[in-house]
Amino acid sequence: MRETVLTTEERESGCVFAPKFDSAGLLTAVVVNANSKDVLVVAFMNEEALLRTRETGKVHFWSRSRGSLWLKGETSGNYLMVEDILVDCDQDALVILAKPAGPTCHTGAESCFYRRLDPSAPDTRALSSASR
Amino acid sequence: MRETVLTTEERESGCVFAPKFDSAGLLTAVVVNANSKDVLVVAFMNEEALLRTRETGKVHFWSRSRGSLWLKGETSGNYLMVEDILVDCDQDALVILAKPAGPTCHTGAESCFYRRLDPSAPDTRALSSASR
Repeated sequence: MRETVLTTEERESGCVFAPKFDSAGLLTAVVVNANSKDVLVVAFMNEEALLRTRETGKVHFWSRSRGSLWLKGETSGNYLMVEDILVDCDQDALVILAKPAGPTCHTGAESCFYRRLDPSAPDTRALSSASR
Repeated sequence: MRETVLTTEERESGCVFAPKFDSAGLLTAVVVNANSKDVLVVAFMNEEALLRTRETGKVHFWSRSRGSLWLKGETSGNYLMVEDILVDCDQDALVILAKPAGPTCHTGAESCFYRRLDPSAPDTRALSSASR
């Protein structure tokens, strides 16, 4: 993997995109519904997933469990169409605003974040539906 | 670290919170402004950071670079006050809706995601201000 060396100033304030992949070659990608601004899914991208996402306008991830490139919607048809990509200060995370072609979660939910945590409840009954 | 063993059905549909930490003992935490729904920061939590966040109502992370617990706002005073915590299908990522006491990014920006990536531009000039 090529690594672009930048000063902190260049990395945080410049126009050069130098994505910082971690020791496993991954960065975090947060996909947000471009209309509702709900977070749909959080996953990881390697260099290839990022490249394919940029080239095709469809969100690609790296599946850590399967160890392979993963075009989101490949089997379901529920692609995530890229509207905008935001980059954070140290360039190790992306926020992707996207239009979902259908429910994003494999469970059929619109978003993977369909449950709420009650911070003070015991773990055995801390989750409930987040539908609002 | 205790690991709660659940069936896939229990993990994805149940009320038991069994956070799935990765091989480094971390899960991903996305902090969203509870009012604007802008993503403010993406970082990682270990078991202790999650526990402290639940106990105090202030977002804590695990700093991978410093290798230590990190109360967001510890030095700046710009704490992130937890309003709601959402959990994803496989329980390895959290979305935290929070009220920021001040700018979240160490650069002084409201959000760490203050730049936009032009997907088709060469990396040397792909980033620009995301201010809207």
